[in-house]
Amino acid sequence: MGLRFSGDRLLVTYRILGTADLARKRAEEIAVEQTIEYPPELVHRRDILEQVVGRVEGLSAVDELTHHARISYATEIAGEELTQLLNVLLGNSSLKPGIRVVGLELPESLLASFGGPSFGRQGLRQWLGVHGRPILATAIKPMGLGPQELAELGASFARGGIDLVKDDHGLANQSFCPFEERVEAVAEAIIRANAAADTHCVYAPNVTASPRVALARGRFAKAAGARALLFAPGLGGWDTLRMLADDESIQLPILCHPALLGSLHIDPDHGFGCGIVYGELARLAGADATIFPSFGGRFSFSELDCRELVQGTERRLGNLKSIFPTPAGGLSLERIPELLRFYGPEAILLIGGDLHRHGSDLLSTCRRFRAAVESPHR
Amino acid sequence: MGLRFSGDRLLVTYRILGTADLARKRAEEIAVEQTIEYPPELVHRRDILEQVVGRVEGLSAVDELTHHARISYATEIAGEELTQLLNVLLGNSSLKPGIRVVGLELPESLLASFGGPSFGRQGLRQWLGVHGRPILATAIKPMGLGPQELAELGASFARGGIDLVKDDHGLANQSFCPFEERVEAVAEAIIRANAAADTHCVYAPNVTASPRVALARGRFAKAAGARALLFAPGLGGWDTLRMLADDESIQLPILCHPALLGSLHIDPDHGFGCGIVYGELARLAGADATIFPSFGGRFSFSELDCRELVQGTERRLGNLKSIFPTPAGGLSLERIPELLRFYGPEAILLIGGDLHRHGSDLLSTCRRFRAAVESPHR
Repeated sequence: MGLRFSGDRLLVTYRILGTADLARKRAEEIAVEQTIEYPPELVHRRDILEQVVGRVEGLSAVDELTHHARISYATEIAGEELTQLLNVLLGNSSLKPGIRVVGLELPESLLASFGGPSFGRQGLRQWLGVHGRPILATAIKPMGLGPQELAELGASFARGGIDLVKDDHGLANQSFCPFEERVEAVAEAIIRANAAADTHCVYAPNVTASPRVALARGRFAKAAGARALLFAPGLGGWDTLRMLADDESIQLPILCHPALLGSLHIDPDHGFGCGIVYGELARLAGADATIFPSFGGRFSFSELDCRELVQGTERRLGNLKSIFPTPAGGLSLERIPELLRFYGPEAILLIGGDLHRHGSDLLSTCRRFRAAVESPHR
Repeated sequence: MGLRFSGDRLLVTYRILGTADLARKRAEEIAVEQTIEYPPELVHRRDILEQVVGRVEGLSAVDELTHHARISYATEIAGEELTQLLNVLLGNSSLKPGIRVVGLELPESLLASFGGPSFGRQGLRQWLGVHGRPILATAIKPMGLGPQELAELGASFARGGIDLVKDDHGLANQSFCPFEERVEAVAEAIIRANAAADTHCVYAPNVTASPRVALARGRFAKAAGARALLFAPGLGGWDTLRMLADDESIQLPILCHPALLGSLHIDPDHGFGCGIVYGELARLAGADATIFPSFGGRFSFSELDCRELVQGTERRLGNLKSIFPTPAGGLSLERIPELLRFYGPEAILLIGGDLHRHGSDLLSTCRRFRAAVESPHR
């Protein structure tokens, strides 16, 4: 009774710290650790050794002490589940230092299990009615304001021409700002402001929570008139994001928030490349836009990180749609020309606190934001 | 309309890289980043500045370039949810290098939202009927075997006196070993072997999957006669583990598997201390035992890491039960005396591949394992 596999394989590129000899040894260990997790010399079945154990397809030097190892795995062992795919990519090897997943090639037969983003870039543009320029976004904050105060902020943003207003991701269901009360108040205020000002602002409440609660909040938000959702998979799990994306009664665009995802990539010698975390993983989980702290803000992402990240949002991934990179994390109006040059039109520019630095007339600050993006050369 | 908070606060100790001046500056930034995420100078409400923003309670030097900062947060901002608690602890600050959560003091009012482990150490001992010695555990593997082959292995382990047999965590729902078929076959084989040999082996199938599927698998496993579950929160999310622990129709002990959790702690200057990941977080999520790669196996955990980890499984955490440290990851029979000295009786010793290194008579190897633990001085 031998294993009969299709021959389709996923191909993972690991960056491994070590000399060529050590890196080869470590690559062979990864191929075992990520699959049979068992001493290969004790396996008596040739089909398991040949088809279940990962296969080191090649090793190349990045420099003397860093190597790229390409390891392929039979598609069948990743099952049809995101959890087991993550497990094959890095599960146990995440418990060893100096191993980073930097490249991913997934066969169509594996990708067929994933619906991916429901909207993607094109769908989200249509949903928002914004074409030919970056999408403008901001957040209602700070934590501590009540539902009515946040609703007034939301209304100002809508009147000022902001396309997308999200909850600050720290707004959960706190006693001083309960989820349902907040979402109803903000959604209603934005709908009214849109009607009065002939704008089309979309509100994305934060539904990050345990699976059942996230689903209930997503449904509540939709019924209350919210037209997008925010979810942080680092806190709530990739598959809960995916459940929201796939839920037939919701069908709203989803913004992926990076809280706690830093652990997957911040150590440059561990985890996953930025492009994979915010690109491929976010897309596999069904996000339509992926928020990250851009270079030049208050975080430490480099231009190179951001470039790699943008590539992850748009490179070929079977039939899964491309999604919007959403630079954020301490951006300012002053930096818009630079952001436009770097990200081009295919981005959501998320400016939060800085919109409040320009005097008490929030409306005119929002209009400056919009003008700077619509007519960058003025 | 001011905020009225209880005064209960959670206290987090961060280890921060930097000189005293820099560490103080970074601590102040964390207190803002984890809460209002907004320029404090633009906040005009004193109650938000005083009650919502985190408070740096103290700074102490570890060495010239490393400091501990104690930051307290109002319990109310962490809501009553694990997702928002994780967010307050490290959410956005995970996107900055050189910040690690090394201490956690959670008030009773916050812990009251968490049921924690249903069994804990004492409950699991009763469930297994094992007293006064470490619990013996192993895994059915390697991946690639079919349900019947795994069932035969399980039966041998049961006859050999192993207390707890878990699925290898890479066994998901692959076409060559479907979940339901495997779980039925293995559970039945172990039940029969127990009856024949008068042993009491408990089988823990791997139910790591998306939330709904994990729940369905947990229920299926229980109905099939499995008497424990295995779940990897790094793959499937802490709250899905919690959902399994809290489900009234399941009520089985849960083993927490470390796959992909390395990202939360493997960089010594980032993330969370080992004790917090495998101790407090696992307990908050409701695990009854926490598997980790012990020092001296094929992973890189130090004795110090393992000591810290054990402390996390048992130190006071409101009324939440203590759980079993479950050292694993390449342990061997030869090392049992050392493991017994280090971990004492309050541990589950998980030996996998090595049980197959001692000839084809698995039964007698299991008996050696048991004898080595029961009569260590023989």
